[in-house]
Amino acid sequence: MHLLLIGIPIYAFWAGSARKTGHEESWAMKAAVLRQGHVVVDEFADPRPSFGQVLVDVKACGICGSDLHFVKHGEEMLRLAGEMRGLPEFGDARTDLGRDVFMGHEFAAEVVEAGPDTESPPAGTLVTSLPVMVTMSGVETLVYSNDFPCGYSQRMLLSAPLLQVVPNGLDAKRAALTEPMAVGLHAVNRSHIAQGEGALVLGCGPIGIAVIAALKLRGIEPIVAADFSTVRRELALTVGAHESVDPAEEPSWDAWQRTGGGRQLVVFEAVGVPGMINEILRAAPLNSRVVVVGVCMGSDSVVPFWAISKEIDIRFVLGYNPQEFNDSLLAIAEGRIDVGPIISGEVPVDGVPGAFAELAEPDRHCKILVVP
Amino acid sequence: MHLLLIGIPIYAFWAGSARKTGHEESWAMKAAVLRQGHVVVDEFADPRPSFGQVLVDVKACGICGSDLHFVKHGEEMLRLAGEMRGLPEFGDARTDLGRDVFMGHEFAAEVVEAGPDTESPPAGTLVTSLPVMVTMSGVETLVYSNDFPCGYSQRMLLSAPLLQVVPNGLDAKRAALTEPMAVGLHAVNRSHIAQGEGALVLGCGPIGIAVIAALKLRGIEPIVAADFSTVRRELALTVGAHESVDPAEEPSWDAWQRTGGGRQLVVFEAVGVPGMINEILRAAPLNSRVVVVGVCMGSDSVVPFWAISKEIDIRFVLGYNPQEFNDSLLAIAEGRIDVGPIISGEVPVDGVPGAFAELAEPDRHCKILVVP
Repeated sequence: MHLLLIGIPIYAFWAGSARKTGHEESWAMKAAVLRQGHVVVDEFADPRPSFGQVLVDVKACGICGSDLHFVKHGEEMLRLAGEMRGLPEFGDARTDLGRDVFMGHEFAAEVVEAGPDTESPPAGTLVTSLPVMVTMSGVETLVYSNDFPCGYSQRMLLSAPLLQVVPNGLDAKRAALTEPMAVGLHAVNRSHIAQGEGALVLGCGPIGIAVIAALKLRGIEPIVAADFSTVRRELALTVGAHESVDPAEEPSWDAWQRTGGGRQLVVFEAVGVPGMINEILRAAPLNSRVVVVGVCMGSDSVVPFWAISKEIDIRFVLGYNPQEFNDSLLAIAEGRIDVGPIISGEVPVDGVPGAFAELAEPDRHCKILVVP
Repeated sequence: MHLLLIGIPIYAFWAGSARKTGHEESWAMKAAVLRQGHVVVDEFADPRPSFGQVLVDVKACGICGSDLHFVKHGEEMLRLAGEMRGLPEFGDARTDLGRDVFMGHEFAAEVVEAGPDTESPPAGTLVTSLPVMVTMSGVETLVYSNDFPCGYSQRMLLSAPLLQVVPNGLDAKRAALTEPMAVGLHAVNRSHIAQGEGALVLGCGPIGIAVIAALKLRGIEPIVAADFSTVRRELALTVGAHESVDPAEEPSWDAWQRTGGGRQLVVFEAVGVPGMINEILRAAPLNSRVVVVGVCMGSDSVVPFWAISKEIDIRFVLGYNPQEFNDSLLAIAEGRIDVGPIISGEVPVDGVPGAFAELAEPDRHCKILVVP
């Protein structure tokens, strides 16, 4: 099921259950939504769980760079998705930017109540879940939804069979990092990097950091991390990089050469801006494997001749599979990955619009959590 | 040694041994060369073998599409090669387009005489060789050379240790197809395609045909071949495709869907024109592997979002290794690949300029041999 592989999906189409709050509603909750191109906070009726669903209180939800991308490039993403073939299961339906869009897919939450005839952990249990919901019409995503509240809400619905109880007394804030760390784990798995090979990670935002943590977990050495930001380079070293480089001071390739040169190189592209892929094709050593985990919007220019001349492999990756999500939760809960240093700030739901603005300044933040 | 992997290399730098013929020379030979952007035929002094070299009479040499590319885009190729990093062994030296450039790297030839103190098969033996020469300064290519005659010449020098005697009484014309068929074999090896997976080959020029033959040899089914040319589609079926499609009549992807749909797909891009890679990213099924074996010059536009959304792998390939060259020769000599139908024309050295013009018309030709 491809949807289960998707960490940053762009489709959300189903019959809705979230409703704008009205005077007739007794309960109401706050949620940050994308409305006409802007992130705003409003009140909505509490969602009500049907059969197979569980109502949860969101305790922490990470703000993902893909959400910043979606706010800025949502229309283009939807246009490109519409032109794409090869994913027939998505059909033609997709997110409607003319309506409110719920976002937030890196969440940990406490069980409030289960729907009718639905098995669930007891109220108060801390859980997380793949950001998808099983419905009678298929598997649907809790990433960009016109109808289902996601993690930038005080409450949301989850699919009972997909709930994962957070183990080992792990707190909600760290548990919320399960999803982005799974993206790093998946990228490293897809790279097929092996002992004796080295890695160069370009970009040390949350995804680059997740990749570094996953490489460290696999015992890869050396891991060379490149970022213009001092804060992010330090974070890279904290989570496991052996060497960090400021590309303004030294070309990343030279840093690789003096640290790991001669080994088989796997390059992780975690920047996601136009021109990055081509610069890798131009400068990477012969036979490099390149894993593109950063999402670059729109068209990008490449010189295939460079890739051909050096027989480069490019592996594009997205999301993770359920096993990787589970592995990520366990690695965090057992302390094999310390996600504490990655959390650089916390805001309530009211603070989401401001946090989106702050995250545009990469020198100050890595991962901001929404703590409703 | 990377040079041994290169079937279509672009570098040639060494001390020369070919000389423009003068009145003082007793022997002279004809060769087609690239001169000021045009392919012309002229007379040159016979090359003389030094230690480790063998003088041969060229019996047949295929005209390669990469040579047509080089005539048209040589300057751009050299500029792009100059901007590229990651291949330090090449240094800065490269082909000088201001001087005559010898070409022709798909050859079979008869031994004439060995250099001093050099072991060689006896005169008259039919041989072929990787298009490279071992010299005291390293391994150098016989593809685009300012100094060493290549296969579009009546005679040329080969490196004695690299000579392969053509086995099984195979004739020179078929033996000359060893090199392009090795390119197909290498592309298929690099694809890691396995039984149970299917292939879609886009473009049925000589390289696409070589890929199809190699896929057939490996027992892959189905092999779907796409080309606008009727002649080339028929040739594709002759060498092993199970289905052929004219993209003007039916999208290649639909032909794949009705023939092999549901299987893991490996797409071979053997067209090499701008836009092909992006069209594959747009239309290929989820998790497709793409092998780029066509050489597209200059910049090309891609939408990484499509590749990311479907987790596509792109493997860029070039040339072959010595084992693959040997495997190719044996497969042809033992009749496991029948290259006869691929040969669509023959010209003497004088006919090379005209053949280059004819090959611009893909409806009429596949492989033209120069038969000096």
